Amino acid sequence: MFSDGGDGTGGARVGVRIGDSVLDLARALGDEVFGEPSLNAFMAQGPARWAEVRARITDLLTAEQHRGPAAATLRPLSAVRLHLPFTAGDYVDFFGNEYHAANAGRIFRPGGEPLTPNWKHLPIGYHGRSGTIVPSGTPVTRPCGQRRGTGGPTFGPSRLLDFEAEVGFVVGVGSSGPVPVRDFAEHVFGVFLLNDWSSRDLQAWESQPLGPFLAKSFATSVSPWVVPLQALEPARVSPPPRDPEPLPYLADAGPWGLDLTLEVRLNGQLVARPPFAATYWTAAQMLAHMTVNGASTRTGDLFASGTVSGPERDQRGCLLELSWGGAEPLTLPDGSVRSFLEDGDEVTISATAPASDGTRIGFGEVTGQIRPAAHP
Amino acid sequence: MFSDGGDGTGGARVGVRIGDSVLDLARALGDEVFGEPSLNAFMAQGPARWAEVRARITDLLTAEQHRGPAAATLRPLSAVRLHLPFTAGDYVDFFGNEYHAANAGRIFRPGGEPLTPNWKHLPIGYHGRSGTIVPSGTPVTRPCGQRRGTGGPTFGPSRLLDFEAEVGFVVGVGSSGPVPVRDFAEHVFGVFLLNDWSSRDLQAWESQPLGPFLAKSFATSVSPWVVPLQALEPARVSPPPRDPEPLPYLADAGPWGLDLTLEVRLNGQLVARPPFAATYWTAAQMLAHMTVNGASTRTGDLFASGTVSGPERDQRGCLLELSWGGAEPLTLPDGSVRSFLEDGDEVTISATAPASDGTRIGFGEVTGQIRPAAHP
Repeated sequence: MFSDGGDGTGGARVGVRIGDSVLDLARALGDEVFGEPSLNAFMAQGPARWAEVRARITDLLTAEQHRGPAAATLRPLSAVRLHLPFTAGDYVDFFGNEYHAANAGRIFRPGGEPLTPNWKHLPIGYHGRSGTIVPSGTPVTRPCGQRRGTGGPTFGPSRLLDFEAEVGFVVGVGSSGPVPVRDFAEHVFGVFLLNDWSSRDLQAWESQPLGPFLAKSFATSVSPWVVPLQALEPARVSPPPRDPEPLPYLADAGPWGLDLTLEVRLNGQLVARPPFAATYWTAAQMLAHMTVNGASTRTGDLFASGTVSGPERDQRGCLLELSWGGAEPLTLPDGSVRSFLEDGDEVTISATAPASDGTRIGFGEVTGQIRPAAHP
Repeated sequence: MFSDGGDGTGGARVGVRIGDSVLDLARALGDEVFGEPSLNAFMAQGPARWAEVRARITDLLTAEQHRGPAAATLRPLSAVRLHLPFTAGDYVDFFGNEYHAANAGRIFRPGGEPLTPNWKHLPIGYHGRSGTIVPSGTPVTRPCGQRRGTGGPTFGPSRLLDFEAEVGFVVGVGSSGPVPVRDFAEHVFGVFLLNDWSSRDLQAWESQPLGPFLAKSFATSVSPWVVPLQALEPARVSPPPRDPEPLPYLADAGPWGLDLTLEVRLNGQLVARPPFAATYWTAAQMLAHMTVNGASTRTGDLFASGTVSGPERDQRGCLLELSWGGAEPLTLPDGSVRSFLEDGDEVTISATAPASDGTRIGFGEVTGQIRPAAHP
């Protein structure tokens, strides 16, 4: 979603990123659904229409006779403003990566089992706040809140502010009952990048017994681009081996692992390359689980993978893991040292996936800079 | 919100309940904001406007010269269809009643401390699913899901289905930063009744470490009427004594306890009279807490109190407490016995509050009947 710049979202419309340019889809295809200020209306049209438009765009960009007119609608990326690509309905955040879940368990519950007994049986998730989802580039103010103290809780700016590199999925066609694993691609339009900013000190104090709340609800940043699931066929891989086999409603139906390589940069310096293919639960399983109780979904409902991590230290998708809860601070290439985020720090998550022609599809990036806490 | 009947929400518009009739506000006041299919546009206009409209309605119903025209717009309640009163944004469910929280702690963690260490320091809450909020009268299908089993989890219809009698609050004027306790009435438009249907077997298995998810997300029922906060001045009471004093940002600013008496009926038989005034955390504290990390709110954002219970057995607002987790089944006046809900059971929650003229304000009701599980 892009506009000609300036403040607000006035004139926002659908764009397709072509290298360092944006194709103005409403003009290029002469279809007013792409003049809408979010992808929702188009996403609701369903997979046959998604495929048709994809084919038309490919045609437009490759066929000799169309190059002229299509080229005329290209705008340099540097000249436009990027926006939230969808109007978000409900937002569910999963916890689907075994490396992350086990590391978090070891850090938060030392001496205990790294994974809770339910972890291998269902994709654990919780609802997040959709009203605080912001587009890439929006500054993130350090949240204030309660943290555990020796003589009772204390209040102030979070001391343990973190990012979480995640992959998000957006529902195009809603549902009114369970969505079987095999129907995943009938409902989910596409894939984007998400930073689930997290305050570890708020989280440690507030989360029992009902889960994270203020530790996550201050901001969630998403990339301005949604990569259609239909463009990711070459990226489909088998998920990690299942042990034990999950219940039948969660059985895999085709390889819905996705071979995305994420890159996390802190102040421009690469700190992690989390491999999304290592994520235990697939997005198809997440959607099947989320709806197996009969819960409906709507166009624009989002869900995210949870922090993406891999077996190696430099594959961990959050500072909690990278610094092992602060016990092993991270030294960046420029010599600076971090356990958690400092004011002014900028976090940028990008990703690529294999394309059918041997090149790689870019997901753009989601970036955000930490601003100092606003003292009440 | 009401319409002339039939399916769907076509023609839905704002109505004011007067006894067993509905006043068609768009016609009575000649103001198109009340012809909108939700209260959101009116709620966004703010407290001065809310007060003005309240005064005009009172005038219309009492002044001799207006009785004729106003009476002409009255429709019998039995002839109209009732709808969701708002377009819901984010939905937060709190856990703000000490009797409920302590009872749940004793049942779920026997032998441990009834309350977690954070409970008296902050209103614990979590985000619920706003896309499955349904209006009173919508049937509720028993959810399927995973529950703990001896040889691993099993899948099937929930066996421990419950209601939770709660009081909901809807944001009229959104906010972009912390909302102090004293500013509560500048932002919250009104109060409604909510049934947070809960599956206790799904909840017990899934909730660690990130809180309830599918146990709650299948359906949440709300009353079709919103009682303006401005009508509840006579119901304001001091909340229970605070021990310990909460942190300064949660300090009470005026008595924001509300003396609502709820009534819960199961198949028409009174099973509980939960006293809302016994709720430890006030709605003003809930909103202050929910936003203290900087999280914004929008018109239509909802939050609910959590199950309302009192010190007596017949004041408990859910079957988990009323049957003590099934250990002490409840015998109804007609001789039927319940630990949890059976298919066909109908739950109706109503409430009243003191009015300035010595009568009581009615909140209408939220009702729903359990339908058998849909087997996949």
